Amino acid sequence: MVGGGKDAFIGAIHRHAAFMDGMIELVCGALSINPEVAKDSGKSLFLPEDRIYLTFDEMITKEAALPADKRMDFVTIVTPNFAHFAPAMMAMDHGFHVVIEKPIAFTLDEAKQLKNKVEETGLILCLTHTYSGYPLVKHAKQMIKAGALGKIRKVWVEYPQGWLSKLSEREGNAQAAWRTDPKRSGKSGCMGDIGTHCAHLAEYITGLKISKICADLNVMVEGRMLDDDGNVLLKFDNGAAGVLMASQVAAGEENAIKIRVYGEKGGIEWAQQEPNTMYVKWLDQPTQILRAGGNYGDRLSSFAMQVTRTPGGHPEGYLEAFANIYRNFSHTLAARIVGAEPTAEMLDFPTVDDGIRGMAFIDNVVLSSQSETKWTNHIV
Amino acid sequence: MVGGGKDAFIGAIHRHAAFMDGMIELVCGALSINPEVAKDSGKSLFLPEDRIYLTFDEMITKEAALPADKRMDFVTIVTPNFAHFAPAMMAMDHGFHVVIEKPIAFTLDEAKQLKNKVEETGLILCLTHTYSGYPLVKHAKQMIKAGALGKIRKVWVEYPQGWLSKLSEREGNAQAAWRTDPKRSGKSGCMGDIGTHCAHLAEYITGLKISKICADLNVMVEGRMLDDDGNVLLKFDNGAAGVLMASQVAAGEENAIKIRVYGEKGGIEWAQQEPNTMYVKWLDQPTQILRAGGNYGDRLSSFAMQVTRTPGGHPEGYLEAFANIYRNFSHTLAARIVGAEPTAEMLDFPTVDDGIRGMAFIDNVVLSSQSETKWTNHIV
Amino acid sequence: MVGGGKDAFIGAIHRHAAFMDGMIELVCGALSINPEVAKDSGKSLFLPEDRIYLTFDEMITKEAALPADKRMDFVTIVTPNFAHFAPAMMAMDHGFHVVIEKPIAFTLDEAKQLKNKVEETGLILCLTHTYSGYPLVKHAKQMIKAGALGKIRKVWVEYPQGWLSKLSEREGNAQAAWRTDPKRSGKSGCMGDIGTHCAHLAEYITGLKISKICADLNVMVEGRMLDDDGNVLLKFDNGAAGVLMASQVAAGEENAIKIRVYGEKGGIEWAQQEPNTMYVKWLDQPTQILRAGGNYGDRLSSFAMQVTRTPGGHPEGYLEAFANIYRNFSHTLAARIVGAEPTAEMLDFPTVDDGIRGMAFIDNVVLSSQSETKWTNHIV
Amino acid sequence: MVGGGKDAFIGAIHRHAAFMDGMIELVCGALSINPEVAKDSGKSLFLPEDRIYLTFDEMITKEAALPADKRMDFVTIVTPNFAHFAPAMMAMDHGFHVVIEKPIAFTLDEAKQLKNKVEETGLILCLTHTYSGYPLVKHAKQMIKAGALGKIRKVWVEYPQGWLSKLSEREGNAQAAWRTDPKRSGKSGCMGDIGTHCAHLAEYITGLKISKICADLNVMVEGRMLDDDGNVLLKFDNGAAGVLMASQVAAGEENAIKIRVYGEKGGIEWAQQEPNTMYVKWLDQPTQILRAGGNYGDRLSSFAMQVTRTPGGHPEGYLEAFANIYRNFSHTLAARIVGAEPTAEMLDFPTVDDGIRGMAFIDNVVLSSQSETKWTNHIV
Repeated sequence: MVGGGKDAFIGAIHRHAAFMDGMIELVCGALSINPEVAKDSGKSLFLPEDRIYLTFDEMITKEAALPADKRMDFVTIVTPNFAHFAPAMMAMDHGFHVVIEKPIAFTLDEAKQLKNKVEETGLILCLTHTYSGYPLVKHAKQMIKAGALGKIRKVWVEYPQGWLSKLSEREGNAQAAWRTDPKRSGKSGCMGDIGTHCAHLAEYITGLKISKICADLNVMVEGRMLDDDGNVLLKFDNGAAGVLMASQVAAGEENAIKIRVYGEKGGIEWAQQEPNTMYVKWLDQPTQILRAGGNYGDRLSSFAMQVTRTPGGHPEGYLEAFANIYRNFSHTLAARIVGAEPTAEMLDFPTVDDGIRGMAFIDNVVLSSQSETKWTNHIV
Repeated sequence: MVGGGKDAFIGAIHRHAAFMDGMIELVCGALSINPEVAKDSGKSLFLPEDRIYLTFDEMITKEAALPADKRMDFVTIVTPNFAHFAPAMMAMDHGFHVVIEKPIAFTLDEAKQLKNKVEETGLILCLTHTYSGYPLVKHAKQMIKAGALGKIRKVWVEYPQGWLSKLSEREGNAQAAWRTDPKRSGKSGCMGDIGTHCAHLAEYITGLKISKICADLNVMVEGRMLDDDGNVLLKFDNGAAGVLMASQVAAGEENAIKIRVYGEKGGIEWAQQEPNTMYVKWLDQPTQILRAGGNYGDRLSSFAMQVTRTPGGHPEGYLEAFANIYRNFSHTLAARIVGAEPTAEMLDFPTVDDGIRGMAFIDNVVLSSQSETKWTNHIV
Repeated sequence: MVGGGKDAFIGAIHRHAAFMDGMIELVCGALSINPEVAKDSGKSLFLPEDRIYLTFDEMITKEAALPADKRMDFVTIVTPNFAHFAPAMMAMDHGFHVVIEKPIAFTLDEAKQLKNKVEETGLILCLTHTYSGYPLVKHAKQMIKAGALGKIRKVWVEYPQGWLSKLSEREGNAQAAWRTDPKRSGKSGCMGDIGTHCAHLAEYITGLKISKICADLNVMVEGRMLDDDGNVLLKFDNGAAGVLMASQVAAGEENAIKIRVYGEKGGIEWAQQEPNTMYVKWLDQPTQILRAGGNYGDRLSSFAMQVTRTPGGHPEGYLEAFANIYRNFSHTLAARIVGAEPTAEMLDFPTVDDGIRGMAFIDNVVLSSQSETKWTNHIV
Repeated sequence: MVGGGKDAFIGAIHRHAAFMDGMIELVCGALSINPEVAKDSGKSLFLPEDRIYLTFDEMITKEAALPADKRMDFVTIVTPNFAHFAPAMMAMDHGFHVVIEKPIAFTLDEAKQLKNKVEETGLILCLTHTYSGYPLVKHAKQMIKAGALGKIRKVWVEYPQGWLSKLSEREGNAQAAWRTDPKRSGKSGCMGDIGTHCAHLAEYITGLKISKICADLNVMVEGRMLDDDGNVLLKFDNGAAGVLMASQVAAGEENAIKIRVYGEKGGIEWAQQEPNTMYVKWLDQPTQILRAGGNYGDRLSSFAMQVTRTPGGHPEGYLEAFANIYRNFSHTLAARIVGAEPTAEMLDFPTVDDGIRGMAFIDNVVLSSQSETKWTNHIV
């Protein structure tokens, strides 16, 4: 693991998620650029002292030098956005698969280089767009793919948060500080951090691609350097229309990402804060409440069933969704190791291609926001 | 009453609403352009035969000729949009107040003429934008006015319906037929019918005015003559940003108009389908559930309390919201009759000014949708 | 109308409900035992002075003396419980139908006398157990009658309120004062006031009769004279088991009456505070959300459709449920007047038989609570 | 781990939960009484072959013979109820701490012997009453302890499931087979399995003890050997009244355990299926929605905060609640190992005393159900 020391947030999430299924162990780490933090964090995570490294460079070099059955199997990168690219490239250059916290990189160009490296090495790059790990999200995707809703006409996706309603980056909030800083976060704040989740979720569930956007990005808190709010009109490649709304100044909201998709025959509604429930709406029949783990025979897709650990009514949450990405990634890795073909279900995790679309989305949404023309093509 | 015969929808709604408080009686009507329907409808509504009229012209003329204590007090107009203007003008010319189903008229120009007539005659024109009649909507307006949320930054307002998901206008659905017909409905379908409700609700609750729009109107069902779906980016006159989403092809939705407003300190969320509940969200305190009729001492605004008939937990609904418009209108009328000054609470019903903004909204949203420029000014 | 003056609560509810459909007019009243209140109330309700009476005796006598086409058609009695019987008997003795606020009387014996009078005179006695007036409650009854849930096994019905959490009867709350006073309310407080609603709702929806009870009534607020809380185990005549929970000291609750019924094949859940939604649960299929006015073809029972005024998504509430009792009563009356047979739908309102079961429930639940034996037969 | 092979349910749950925080490793197991299953399961869980045992006897004997730094630290027992006692006693006799799936044993007598053994050895016995592991449940307990609701008056606790609505034990459902079999499950079915969860949750949250019960247990599915449904009136040691409802024939329900507690000043409502939300109701102020991980400063109890892994809006679920029991148990163990005093927060997990109360509850509820007297004392 690169990053994720004691003072970080997302590193601990990755560890809970990776450990949950008993398939992954933490064997080494370069957990912080602060050597003290790196050492303390490594100890508290029960790492052997000789595998607590102070830089990713050291970690990758030394691990690569270990015998094959001792060295780490893959690298997880949970540093701030600007520090994703270098360790990812180096890891792949040394033959390690990588798991990267989203967004994949700092620029679209970096993302494209990562893609080339993946193609060149044949290694796996897994990107943790967590929300696509929820069982009912996977079920929604399969339902739509199978035509249950007919042709898709509308997509509304939203992600209101309220945690940046004040100028917290000036009040000692470290998360706020790097996420609102163009040098560490990238050219967009809110859209880069959570707008990309919305875009990914919309494309993942519908199987469509966003083709045109019309963006209005805002800085709502005076003194902030990056957008903290934005609304985007969307056109999809099948002609569907949509709206993407993301905000970090929706005071009082937590992580209320929600998606609604409507087709000719019906619609679905899923909200992350109550992720085990999905509403399926029909034109002339009562709405149904689908439940993760529901006792419906084979009505739930195999893509959902294989990432469900508990029976209906025993809720699974964010860590399980996160774990599902690691789970599918691990199963794919395990299949490869024994020379088997991974199933479609195993391969259902975000990859470098999703990373590239995400970086392009950031570029295009910023471009559109600065433009006086209504529509901007969303090209990669 | 003009329109509202047996085969109509909104006429019956107006009657339930007007009767509920025992202050208004139906004394005469020109209930249909079909004489048979007009007569039958009048009889079934217990009208005396000599006050069942066949045209609004006849009704207004004859009623005006009755002695002051016998004639009707005001005219309610519930015809399709294209037939609002003529009876409204004639009624006012004969000294009758008017209540008009929204949208106020067929064109902005007609709306402006009605405004001139109102100013000329001093009569009252009441427009039934129903959703502003709900007690908690009124409370939200007063909360925001009093600064409880701080400066308003964001407004998301949406109205998904699914009833036009098919080409029902060709399948004998009379409601669908006139509402999708530019000759009877006007230059917009979905935006004219329900987008205007959203715009009105957003301006009513926030006390702000929409100043710029960027609209994407769609015809999702092939063969339809007017938009059945639309998404609009909004800018408000205080700098707040927003989105207005309206659709008649959101398959499986009923009348799910909902509004969320966020300010510096918190936000509110209200949805018409559960209208007795409003969520009030705070930056660093738990969300509160405000309930219509709630037992909170004077925490609920007098504007809400005066239009609440039942104690908390005994739900009031759409007819009561509608009745509240009639109730405030009636109290205003009653105050005028005795020469008293109506209170601010009594005067809290939509008027010709709301009608003009609504017609301008239709014009501008259509204009913006046809434009390749991002922003269109919303001028009246 | 007997009772229901300016200082009362339920009288106004009856008026809103009765007026809503334009079939009923208030023509006279003995609105209060306080002559000043009676007069003022009558005036503010636009009653002619000569039909504002000071006692029910005067009202019934004088109205009976009017010509048939002038006199009132029926009497509504909305006085406290102890004052239901006398006006009801006298009204029927003078040939007037009666509508009585529940509970029907002060004692079971009075209720039985009323039943004899109904049988003797052939007049209609309508009892306003409001909750059975909701469209989805009617639909639930018909679903269960048609066997959709299979044999019924379980019934959980509850009515938590919080308004008597303090000793409000000593703090000038007039409602609290008479409802907690055995001389005016009867031998039970909470069970008489809201427990009877639960028992009625359970028997109405399931079509079963409660055959045995095991009650635990409590006085939770020191100094109170009647029970303010109670839990009752139930057995039904088909072998089903159940629980009835009612409380007036469930601090923070409004009028949260809710019922859940489970059969061999599925269950239903309906809660009065969101009355336009009913959850229908199935053994091995997703739960369905039934909506009042839902666009499901003929899936909703005619008993529900005939008491629905608005399309799905435009909520109807408590006043409409109340109005539905008046509506069915009025249609039955109207049918009788023209010599027609009322339909089963029209006849779907509570009558003297429900009143008798309610009074017996009060008697038996008090008996059971005082008994050391587990089960008490619920006999009438 | 004893039990929990490939064909079991709860064993996997324990493993996910134990692994999640990276503090616990599976080092050995006697995973099934079927040797093939034991071996296969061990392999698939990456156990070294020499620590895959065929009986708990073998496991405990051989592990005890390993050097202290190699041998297992504690034993988790996830066998059916009848097979809890023997391995637990033997483990403690060999100096191992134990974690036992509830109910603690097959009889009250066994539970008491376990308690003696705990006292004799000073070892820790942790009982996995999962629902008390949820952060908001812990917060509710602390709120009530601090007097926020005033004196507690009412407790309603319910656990509807529908999975035994048919005679599944005769249709090859292994879970149903042992749970409805008195020889493997004990003297009660539904009450033993889920009624005990309700009783534990009620006593845990309120800090009160159930002192008297009046039970009605039912066999709703013909041919079943144990109760599948039951309703119990409760009295608590402070005078509060309550109801406990549990059912396995509530067709269409999943694991809908829910509790409502009302005191003089307010009430709380928590439902396991949406465990990150708790409603806090107040006598004369709006209901509040408390959220796990909510950003409320120190408003959430330290007992809740220390078992919360994600910020508000990223839901944690059943596995996390389960993990919290392991987490507190592990922290207590770790503190002991270094000779430190565990904090009150660490010690907040169910122990042998909860197990004894659970077994007594089963005995007393069966006794009460068979009695014709209303109240049975709940004595241990």
